[in-house]
Amino acid sequence: MQVPNIIIIGTGRLARHLLDALANKPDCSISIIGRDSKQLKTLTSLHSGIEVISYSEILPGSICLLCVNDSSIAQVASNISQKDCTLIHFSGVESLDSLKFSHEHSAVFWPIKSFGKDNAVNWGDIPVIAEVSSEQSKAAIKTIQNLLTCNVYYLLAEQRMQLHLAAVMVNNFSNFLFHQAFLWCKKNELPFESLIPIIRQTALNISNEDPAKFQTGPAARGDEETIAKHLKLLHNHESLLKLYSAISSAIQNDESAVI
Amino acid sequence: MQVPNIIIIGTGRLARHLLDALANKPDCSISIIGRDSKQLKTLTSLHSGIEVISYSEILPGSICLLCVNDSSIAQVASNISQKDCTLIHFSGVESLDSLKFSHEHSAVFWPIKSFGKDNAVNWGDIPVIAEVSSEQSKAAIKTIQNLLTCNVYYLLAEQRMQLHLAAVMVNNFSNFLFHQAFLWCKKNELPFESLIPIIRQTALNISNEDPAKFQTGPAARGDEETIAKHLKLLHNHESLLKLYSAISSAIQNDESAVI
Repeated sequence: MQVPNIIIIGTGRLARHLLDALANKPDCSISIIGRDSKQLKTLTSLHSGIEVISYSEILPGSICLLCVNDSSIAQVASNISQKDCTLIHFSGVESLDSLKFSHEHSAVFWPIKSFGKDNAVNWGDIPVIAEVSSEQSKAAIKTIQNLLTCNVYYLLAEQRMQLHLAAVMVNNFSNFLFHQAFLWCKKNELPFESLIPIIRQTALNISNEDPAKFQTGPAARGDEETIAKHLKLLHNHESLLKLYSAISSAIQNDESAVI
Repeated sequence: MQVPNIIIIGTGRLARHLLDALANKPDCSISIIGRDSKQLKTLTSLHSGIEVISYSEILPGSICLLCVNDSSIAQVASNISQKDCTLIHFSGVESLDSLKFSHEHSAVFWPIKSFGKDNAVNWGDIPVIAEVSSEQSKAAIKTIQNLLTCNVYYLLAEQRMQLHLAAVMVNNFSNFLFHQAFLWCKKNELPFESLIPIIRQTALNISNEDPAKFQTGPAARGDEETIAKHLKLLHNHESLLKLYSAISSAIQNDESAVI
């Protein structure tokens, strides 16, 4: 059996993480396409045997990984004139249509992961949401899944977007709370490091059951006196006051808590 | 040297966790006071050598641990007619005044920890914020610290309350986001377990540096198109819509991000 021909398109964080994971695998051939020649040089210097190619050199049967911003997906797809290949994008919110418009075989491969600047990535720990347009694109997803040894769930576009919204809440929103707590501690000369154990414990508590069972705090127990003390501390910090009030109100009005 | 005489007052979760940690230590003597005789029986049956006593039996020099609700601290303190002992409460927001009013030697020992129903507790992992009224109460805190082998920070009441506010944000508020994401997944038949790795990673990223460096997502990058898609998904979910909008706005208006 011929080894799959994989083309990474893009030179950003996702491209780098995929290259790190796929390069040097004996059972695939990796090429890369990108506009940023300096970045291309950096990426190819990290791994041997990675060929830099152009769009016109994409071979039939290739798997093209579009590691680009959501807004560039359709444009990049239109650059690929080779029709007998599978196009895969990595967005949590973009539909397959932007690829299907130009290519019959297309798929989504959305890793539920925030690719930060520093993180090393273990793909085996990353759940991936997939959607496919055809049997060929399903086989392409299976190839990538096997190479990365990650866990794949198949969802339709609407469900993927719903899950993306949930991921924003648990990742982006909670990180923002940690950031606000950090600034608050810094401003008031408090030891932020004393909060790290409770941050970790809160996350480690989470299993496949309702986290409501770990909900404590003044808002959950209707402790208006403590809430008033906190609001008083925040009286000169309008934005934090608004954030605190909005979330405390949401907790106090949470009817699901009694389900 | 005489071993310290420690009186646990209360029979709730905190009393149980302290009893679990302190019972059977060779270098202290533990008694317990409580109104709930059934709970007292349960707690003392778990450990041998724990004496149930009444307020009038508190000996001079004892360390009294007031494991009661914030609103009951002053009342319990007034029940202790023995003046030559040290009273310690465990609140993040109550001042020392409620104890100092009746007793010269008093202290605060606030563990930064959400004592849930199921958690086992390792006191060595729990940072504790302390405040003392005298040398004797400082010695009492030192005794408890040594017995529990925990990490103690001394802060004044105002700072402790500021840190309590930050703890509410990182623990109660983030847990509420996880709870909301859980309900959303359940309602839409999405695999909540696929979010657990990103929840854990978000927390494990946190060190003593500004978490802003891990901030990603539509609000942080000004991706109005994705935010609009999310808001559309939420159009029939008023409370979640309000929460999403409030936090997204706070992220978009966060001027500290450029510091």
